[in-house]
Amino acid sequence: MTNSSLLPLDEALARWRQALLEASALRRLPAETVPVAQAYGRVTATAVWARLSSPHYHAVAMDGYAVRTQNAAGAAPHTPIYLRLKEEAIYVNTGDPLPPGCDVVIPQEEAQIEGDWLVITQPPRAWRHVRLIGEDMVASELVIPAHQRLRPQDLGAIAGSGHATVRVYRPPRIAILPIGARLVQPRPQLEPGQIVEFNSMVLAAMATEWGAVANALPATNCEMESLVQQVAAALDDHDLVVLNAGAAGGARDYAEAIIRRLGQVDVRGVAMRPGHSVILGQARGKPLVAIPGFPVSAMTAFEQMVRPLLESWQGQPAMRSPEQEVFIAHPIPSDPEMDDFKRVILAHTHRNVVARPLPQSAGAIMTMVRADAVLRIPRGQGGVEADTYARVTLLRPPEAIANTIVHIGSHDLTLDILADQLRRAHPDRSLSSLHTGSKEGLKALARGEAHFTGCHLLDPETGVYNISAARRYLPHQQLVVMSFVRRVQGLLVQRGNPKALRDLRDLLRADITFVNRQPGSGTRLLLDYHLTRMGIAPEVIRGYDHHEFSHLTVAAAIKNGAADAGLGILAAARSLDLDFIPLFEEEYQLIFPQEHYESPLLAPMLDLIRSVDFRQSIAALGGYVVEDMGAVQTVP
Amino acid sequence: MTNSSLLPLDEALARWRQALLEASALRRLPAETVPVAQAYGRVTATAVWARLSSPHYHAVAMDGYAVRTQNAAGAAPHTPIYLRLKEEAIYVNTGDPLPPGCDVVIPQEEAQIEGDWLVITQPPRAWRHVRLIGEDMVASELVIPAHQRLRPQDLGAIAGSGHATVRVYRPPRIAILPIGARLVQPRPQLEPGQIVEFNSMVLAAMATEWGAVANALPATNCEMESLVQQVAAALDDHDLVVLNAGAAGGARDYAEAIIRRLGQVDVRGVAMRPGHSVILGQARGKPLVAIPGFPVSAMTAFEQMVRPLLESWQGQPAMRSPEQEVFIAHPIPSDPEMDDFKRVILAHTHRNVVARPLPQSAGAIMTMVRADAVLRIPRGQGGVEADTYARVTLLRPPEAIANTIVHIGSHDLTLDILADQLRRAHPDRSLSSLHTGSKEGLKALARGEAHFTGCHLLDPETGVYNISAARRYLPHQQLVVMSFVRRVQGLLVQRGNPKALRDLRDLLRADITFVNRQPGSGTRLLLDYHLTRMGIAPEVIRGYDHHEFSHLTVAAAIKNGAADAGLGILAAARSLDLDFIPLFEEEYQLIFPQEHYESPLLAPMLDLIRSVDFRQSIAALGGYVVEDMGAVQTVP
Repeated sequence: MTNSSLLPLDEALARWRQALLEASALRRLPAETVPVAQAYGRVTATAVWARLSSPHYHAVAMDGYAVRTQNAAGAAPHTPIYLRLKEEAIYVNTGDPLPPGCDVVIPQEEAQIEGDWLVITQPPRAWRHVRLIGEDMVASELVIPAHQRLRPQDLGAIAGSGHATVRVYRPPRIAILPIGARLVQPRPQLEPGQIVEFNSMVLAAMATEWGAVANALPATNCEMESLVQQVAAALDDHDLVVLNAGAAGGARDYAEAIIRRLGQVDVRGVAMRPGHSVILGQARGKPLVAIPGFPVSAMTAFEQMVRPLLESWQGQPAMRSPEQEVFIAHPIPSDPEMDDFKRVILAHTHRNVVARPLPQSAGAIMTMVRADAVLRIPRGQGGVEADTYARVTLLRPPEAIANTIVHIGSHDLTLDILADQLRRAHPDRSLSSLHTGSKEGLKALARGEAHFTGCHLLDPETGVYNISAARRYLPHQQLVVMSFVRRVQGLLVQRGNPKALRDLRDLLRADITFVNRQPGSGTRLLLDYHLTRMGIAPEVIRGYDHHEFSHLTVAAAIKNGAADAGLGILAAARSLDLDFIPLFEEEYQLIFPQEHYESPLLAPMLDLIRSVDFRQSIAALGGYVVEDMGAVQTVP
Repeated sequence: MTNSSLLPLDEALARWRQALLEASALRRLPAETVPVAQAYGRVTATAVWARLSSPHYHAVAMDGYAVRTQNAAGAAPHTPIYLRLKEEAIYVNTGDPLPPGCDVVIPQEEAQIEGDWLVITQPPRAWRHVRLIGEDMVASELVIPAHQRLRPQDLGAIAGSGHATVRVYRPPRIAILPIGARLVQPRPQLEPGQIVEFNSMVLAAMATEWGAVANALPATNCEMESLVQQVAAALDDHDLVVLNAGAAGGARDYAEAIIRRLGQVDVRGVAMRPGHSVILGQARGKPLVAIPGFPVSAMTAFEQMVRPLLESWQGQPAMRSPEQEVFIAHPIPSDPEMDDFKRVILAHTHRNVVARPLPQSAGAIMTMVRADAVLRIPRGQGGVEADTYARVTLLRPPEAIANTIVHIGSHDLTLDILADQLRRAHPDRSLSSLHTGSKEGLKALARGEAHFTGCHLLDPETGVYNISAARRYLPHQQLVVMSFVRRVQGLLVQRGNPKALRDLRDLLRADITFVNRQPGSGTRLLLDYHLTRMGIAPEVIRGYDHHEFSHLTVAAAIKNGAADAGLGILAAARSLDLDFIPLFEEEYQLIFPQEHYESPLLAPMLDLIRSVDFRQSIAALGGYVVEDMGAVQTVP
């Protein structure tokens, strides 16, 4: 499937639709009759017309006395009119039929009773506190049109208009079949090459959200005959079958073969990113679709291809999620041959709402968890320029986004703990954190993409952290630099430290292979700074020129034996169960533009950072020095 | 409960909250462990931290050949490098672990194979088509914070990070107990005084929408001891019990007594409209609340009082529905002592989005069905002025509102049929219709509150319908007047026409009591026009001075014997199973401002009106002449 063979998105949908129409696979779903009380969220198959008027009689609307206005005409404080109780003034309760001849109710609270008489001192207005027949609805009128998804109030109106049941569409039934030899159920330990199968539960939940009944079948191996049988069986019981994985070209390209065995392929590949390798087909008068295995590709293809079918089967309009206009501070390139769906995070900063793309790896489900919105860059456009506005489709409620504090910068575990504690103490605040490294964090701050950045950039000239770098990237803003943690950097080594390493000098040993971090990273700066101070020439260290891009990939290189040691933090050693030799402390600080530092949005987080509880919970982790936590200096 | 004894809304909530806190009735719900695949929509009780990195190994991201970049350095078209298959170029599938020593994958589509060799003509970039360990998530990092309502992608991230189960709050359990001797189950026929009980299903659906498990108990009579026992039993099994009805003062004021018997009343009445008679209390360490019986009061009180509890039990922020800024074209008065929740319909017209209040009867569930939004006018404000903007809370998706055609004016059944057919043929269009009578419809059109109006105003001077009235109310707009139906007006009489009426002259008979329509209504104008033409003096007709406000209330007066005859349309006779004596035709026309008539929004409706199918379906109803349907004239 090369890019040039891909159909444009709209064209692909139209072609599939046409093919399904010709195969009568786009019929509305059958209708069924359900009790009104069980119809919440269902879609009406036919209109509901009122059988009853409501009220169906002139109904008393207040507890009080029903009277006839004619009998009280001319009443005034000095010429009161007396109406005899039980005859001319009849006590009634809310909901009672208005007694014959009466046309108004005097509420109990306003009623002046003397003995057996109701005393009237001003003429009542006719029909006050009376619900006239048909005030709510009139027999024969339209209560709910066909194809309405029923809300709570709709149930009330249907029941109130004389219907005990309602005709609704049977929900669409969808089967999702994950295919792949490597797939395993979620579990805490995996062998290399095993992949946790979770797409089926993600897609099933999406389908549930859209009103379908989704059946996530167990993951199955790539045995052709057995697969064909399973899919055939699923087609019998469902309105649509989704094959997951196997849609990419190559050895596991079973999906297309299965579709061809049972029916036909209508569209093979769509010019969209992610999700381009989707295959749209049909078998036995039902749609049969293969979507890619990477989770973000799967979600995107499922939303773009499957959702419109579910809507059309129930006569629903194409539903779009809420949109918002956002500012793009930095160019976002895209493939001009593709409709490109970019996940972005949004920050309410000084430039209104600023969008920043997340890493666009289709394999990273966390990008869908972290994303606030999706920016669709249409085919042919080839990107979005800086300093422009664009519309995005929201993945979180606008209010939740407005109440989210955005961090972009160097990642540290303590930020995750801060995020967790913030959410628990302040349910209306979230902390969203994007890990880009220190320098990119400062750039993001300058562009208004974040509220603060976590930073550990050592100035080798001065030995001082962060200040000079912050000034370089944010020359025009008043900044607040807050001490957060000093964290311990050290050597990550195999469990048990088999090569008995003690400090940086041991890296010069001939039996030691080192693994480095990339130039420009805080850890690399730190290493070079200390090597210089110790007078060690870097080129003497075997492996100095081989670098990885994160603490964890350094740890992984040691774990799998590619290297003996690397510089990193304790948390990375713990993640992969390595040993850790502490060497030096570094400053991990938080940098805020003054205006955000003083904003109500950030206040609860700043309070939390300064709390004794939070400080203690970080100290308890080990590997962190917290004594200066919360201390600030301004950088004018 | 007088207005002056009511607590302001915020104060009431705060007082109740404080009282519940003191009784430990605001604790978080207990947590439970559920399989991740079943956790969609549930709320995390604790944060989820990654147990695994994902990928947990350097993973192949494309089917192709894994190689080592070092081995391909210097490759160029004229100096290709040959790598031996299975040794230096190892075939791999997506998801495979990258073979040791390799650091890039050459995708199959790009691979040039000659015999046992992979031919490289340009140096590959390291780590291309490889998913580095931890690319998606890193063991120990925060995956999902506590108190997050789980979306589809969240399930995937939790499972992918090594968890087969997740800790979530048990959903709140709510019991709803309707109380009232008049309440009956939904049914097509009612005795006078019987009221269909549907609040419990409405409230249960609302609670379901908010993530609770709601238990709508059968309506129960007003026997005190039995009620106390039922409520006590419900408190045992639920986190909250809602008593419905009985909250208004008067004979059925059981709710307060029940709460006091079992526990205590914390707030008695809230300064909100509708819903002021709510009672907030507690018993046995659980909240116990009585909400009013009128459906709109019940929904409003439930949303304002109960929803915040459900949210706080699950650590959720107070959720607000989406809001929108709208234009108010006409003053909306409100009670300055109350927070007033006004239901409005919204029209996308020439003045952006214009809001118009619906009738505010708390007993009319149809106003909640028809409403697009709720306008909250705060206590103390006493209304909203004309020509101002206000924020409203939306009850329908903004797009659905933007695709809704708004009619305000005289009601006719044919508009309901139009609405039904429009929705079925064009799922993305709705027709919303508000019944105000012809004159008010023209005024609404002038204010931009509607796209068109249905009108039957006879000019007695000229005998011509609508033109002169339209010119009077919309002097400055180019209008299109469309013929819709001529409808037959006639005498509504008892079934079997026992008094043998034939025409208007029979109204002069001494044994006949007439029931009239209100002055200014189209039907009254029509009656007066014909009486004048026939030379009949109105004052001779017995009952001429007694008027009702709709076709249906006229029909009801005849049905219950208060009158022998009234003028109205066939549909009204049919609604109450009366006989109908056709007398004359009247023009029921549709009037559009030119700009709406030509707008894409209205186009599908206008096409439908001009279709043969629609015309035939109206003709088949009887009582309508459709030959001119769709013909237009412009009124400059």
